[in-house]
Amino acid sequence: MSDSRTTTHTVAVNFGDCDPAGIVFFPNFSRWMDAASLSFFMQCGVPPWRELERTRGIVGTPLLEIHTRFLQSVTYGETITIETCVDEWRGKVFVQHHRVLRDGELVCEGRETRIFVTRDASGTLKSIAVPDDIRALCRTNSRPRTETSP
Amino acid sequence: MSDSRTTTHTVAVNFGDCDPAGIVFFPNFSRWMDAASLSFFMQCGVPPWRELERTRGIVGTPLLEIHTRFLQSVTYGETITIETCVDEWRGKVFVQHHRVLRDGELVCEGRETRIFVTRDASGTLKSIAVPDDIRALCRTNSRPRTETSP
Amino acid sequence: MSDSRTTTHTVAVNFGDCDPAGIVFFPNFSRWMDAASLSFFMQCGVPPWRELERTRGIVGTPLLEIHTRFLQSVTYGETITIETCVDEWRGKVFVQHHRVLRDGELVCEGRETRIFVTRDASGTLKSIAVPDDIRALCRTNSRPRTETSP
Amino acid sequence: MSDSRTTTHTVAVNFGDCDPAGIVFFPNFSRWMDAASLSFFMQCGVPPWRELERTRGIVGTPLLEIHTRFLQSVTYGETITIETCVDEWRGKVFVQHHRVLRDGELVCEGRETRIFVTRDASGTLKSIAVPDDIRALCRTNSRPRTETSP
Repeated sequence: MSDSRTTTHTVAVNFGDCDPAGIVFFPNFSRWMDAASLSFFMQCGVPPWRELERTRGIVGTPLLEIHTRFLQSVTYGETITIETCVDEWRGKVFVQHHRVLRDGELVCEGRETRIFVTRDASGTLKSIAVPDDIRALCRTNSRPRTETSP
Repeated sequence: MSDSRTTTHTVAVNFGDCDPAGIVFFPNFSRWMDAASLSFFMQCGVPPWRELERTRGIVGTPLLEIHTRFLQSVTYGETITIETCVDEWRGKVFVQHHRVLRDGELVCEGRETRIFVTRDASGTLKSIAVPDDIRALCRTNSRPRTETSP
Repeated sequence: MSDSRTTTHTVAVNFGDCDPAGIVFFPNFSRWMDAASLSFFMQCGVPPWRELERTRGIVGTPLLEIHTRFLQSVTYGETITIETCVDEWRGKVFVQHHRVLRDGELVCEGRETRIFVTRDASGTLKSIAVPDDIRALCRTNSRPRTETSP
Repeated sequence: MSDSRTTTHTVAVNFGDCDPAGIVFFPNFSRWMDAASLSFFMQCGVPPWRELERTRGIVGTPLLEIHTRFLQSVTYGETITIETCVDEWRGKVFVQHHRVLRDGELVCEGRETRIFVTRDASGTLKSIAVPDDIRALCRTNSRPRTETSP
């Protein structure tokens, strides 16, 4: 059972996100889930990769695997909400789960398997264990909530 | 066992396809697989959706599901080749398999589950059974090859 | 002097919008201006193209020309605001002006020359004069504001 | 009068490059011109930015300004060819000119004003004068042609 927080990321679907069939060109869902993934970390209090690259050499969380199901077509003028959590942390790998909703209805769902990578002096990317402090920030109880006082 | 042809689609990776980590932003692999999917049908002799929309109401083959594994990072200036076949045809659904190669090395692999859809007069998209004539065109032996005569 | 309303469209810049130099890949500014262009019409009360296509055959406002200046680089994690108005209406053509701001600073500016097009039964796109009712909706004084009563 | 070489870059237009009107979503032309711009330098013998970043700190040639005219709509299944040269070199700035052709017909034309930038140790991007050796490589006569022997 994951102790992950769940964050929310909202996207307004644009004309240019849609294809000649008039519906969202599906790679855009991956693009939006990637934004939701980073938004998850930033909402949890993790600094942007740009800053982590300078301080700790971490350049991001590239994908090992994605698995996405498309349940309903979506079109421009609509707004979707992505709910994101971490389903699983294990060693170097973690799995993020994204649920894409339109007016509360699930329209798309995906799981992303990712790793943290650093770049060394020669420019080579290398995977590292999930940093403990980052993992801690992503826990449900990582931050005192204003409403939790007795 | 599938009787599908295998087609090849080549992509030159551009600067703008890469992210701040200097490697391909992963939704582009989905974009390229989608191009490889259509290229498969056109190399098999299926007319473009634009023409099929006018003659038979078919607007395309939207995705039900994708499953993609990223094995090696790819960057701009490199050329990749996508080998595409149909793994499975069943009722309304078919599964395309894409193997992305760089200099013969597998760098990414994905399966797409798709359906054929038509648009009716009211603009609504509706799935249909895979048309027999289109399926026939995608078979290995669908076309006389000049070299196959005994 | 234009009598156009000015509307505002906000964009959160994502990791995947940036290139290996770590800054926004510039065609994304055109993408966001296109979204701001449609947002302008919808904020003015014009129905989405999808609806206008069904009722009046209007499929959108394709571009004849764009002219864009890039003043400051922008990166992910930043939020930009696009202020959009119509600079000029003339016959079949109109010019939209977009000012892209970050924390009040102008970072990019563009003008788009567009036309309204309809699609006829054969599928051919054809330009039409700017519809009077649409133009009227885009005027500053097109709608009674609650605060304008003396 | 420019002494620039002219290079050619070919693009196959995909389904996902087109919008609900069935034609190329215009920011893709900027994307393809950017690829043609880099292709120009590489065809002239300039190393990729990735290599120049390591050896000379040069991270690319960001845009100051673009000016593009769209003459004919283009759709998927079509192939376009982009002819690229440098119209003007001046100080820190140069102007690239792209002519986009379909079957020999001009469908789109654009000018890009660019600068060379380096990144210093603090990560800041800074413009530099166009390097002489790079400019020399881009001249018509920069390389002995096999056919130029008397």
